[in-house]
Amino acid sequence: MTTHPLDIATSLSPLDDGRFRCCTSQAYANIAGPFGGVTAATLMRAVIEHPERTVDPVAFTVNFCAALKDGDFDIFVKLQRSGKYTQHWSLELEQNGIICATATMICGARGSVFSHQSGEPPQAPPPEECEVKETGGFLKWLERYEYRQVEGTIRFSSEPHPELNSPRNIHWVRDHPERPLDYVSLAAIADTFILRLLYVRGTMAPMGTVSMTTYFHATGEELAVQGSAPLLGVASAERFHGNFHDQPMTLWGKDGLLLASGSQLVWYKE
Amino acid sequence: MTTHPLDIATSLSPLDDGRFRCCTSQAYANIAGPFGGVTAATLMRAVIEHPERTVDPVAFTVNFCAALKDGDFDIFVKLQRSGKYTQHWSLELEQNGIICATATMICGARGSVFSHQSGEPPQAPPPEECEVKETGGFLKWLERYEYRQVEGTIRFSSEPHPELNSPRNIHWVRDHPERPLDYVSLAAIADTFILRLLYVRGTMAPMGTVSMTTYFHATGEELAVQGSAPLLGVASAERFHGNFHDQPMTLWGKDGLLLASGSQLVWYKE
Repeated sequence: MTTHPLDIATSLSPLDDGRFRCCTSQAYANIAGPFGGVTAATLMRAVIEHPERTVDPVAFTVNFCAALKDGDFDIFVKLQRSGKYTQHWSLELEQNGIICATATMICGARGSVFSHQSGEPPQAPPPEECEVKETGGFLKWLERYEYRQVEGTIRFSSEPHPELNSPRNIHWVRDHPERPLDYVSLAAIADTFILRLLYVRGTMAPMGTVSMTTYFHATGEELAVQGSAPLLGVASAERFHGNFHDQPMTLWGKDGLLLASGSQLVWYKE
Repeated sequence: MTTHPLDIATSLSPLDDGRFRCCTSQAYANIAGPFGGVTAATLMRAVIEHPERTVDPVAFTVNFCAALKDGDFDIFVKLQRSGKYTQHWSLELEQNGIICATATMICGARGSVFSHQSGEPPQAPPPEECEVKETGGFLKWLERYEYRQVEGTIRFSSEPHPELNSPRNIHWVRDHPERPLDYVSLAAIADTFILRLLYVRGTMAPMGTVSMTTYFHATGEELAVQGSAPLLGVASAERFHGNFHDQPMTLWGKDGLLLASGSQLVWYKE
């Protein structure tokens, strides 16, 4: 059995001083440096593998402070508070003496209490009826995901669309090659939605996520049930103004269960 | 001119070691300790008043780690990274040697670039046509806000509703007494939505916000235009499961401009 590219890309070596040493992976290369989702997944793994962790991730915020370059980097994890119901973690990612990302993670004890899903997944044909999108040759990390389009597409253009497109899209998404879903892969999949500015305008511009928050609704049991089946993802945006736009998203699993939800704040230049 | 209760509640005294000393305020008392929104606003003020801050808040995550008690507490602010376009801050709030909250804040340079609001505010009568809600005698902090109900209400009950209510509500909200909107008050108003579990079930239970993320779409100029006029707020929830539920929200200002959006993750016990 070969190791999945995501497990290679997110592997950690503990150092003597409590930090973890990591290395970027060409399998998840972005325009420059690695795909932000795999950076988030590596930070997630640093908590998941921490010996003091007793409960599962529920809320995760990653802030991208500086461009991460290809090569080694270190992660520093601090357990800020461990209570009866929650554990609070703070993380820093450092490369060549520069803080490239900060993160906070809350893990929580899950019990059999009141359960109710008020939200509904969008209407979509089953994944097997949706065509797999060709993603090769553009960005390396896109090849690590299988996308099946349901609604909304980027119409690339040399000039911004005179009539702006909708920022909303819906697709089925999973790891490629297939990999059973866990908190590490879900943390990365939460970042697989292409930035909304491209949907709306259709033109390239300097842009990047500055902050990403993901809430994990899925319990460990639900992740096991989901396995490597595609997730139904929806992303949108409410406002583009003064160099920043939001990007809320939801990820739905088998039987229409909401497995994760969250949002990004994206910077853009022009 | 008297000082507004929010400015008293969020006032900071710099200590010699770079920390700020603060004190909770009875004007914003919750069931026990202070209203979380005013804690968020105090953390916001610690960045706003920091001498190294050059640009305005755009993304703010507060994690509530432990119950804050009435009395003094300290805030420690660290500028993690200051670049051409963004400043990244990490914050810790400590009381009696316990970390009670952590936070990350991103401030960003705002320019006159592509601007587009894809989202639309909900339909609502103007605030002057909506009745001001009676909030006295329940929780002290509720008296510090003027709510005008538009849609959705909590129907308190001794037993959970057999048919669950919608988690969604819409209202007009502003500081009481009136206060011109700034990033400090907006950080607090983002937390003025009552927890969705109460809307859905109608029964009290141990519950509390564990993490809150707010994106500030409003520029300084837009805040000045808004002044002390009511904001149209919408909050909802997608899933209640395994002791946690989400709570996305939007806050709309004059001319239907989106001034802030965000989400909370809420813990509940039963």
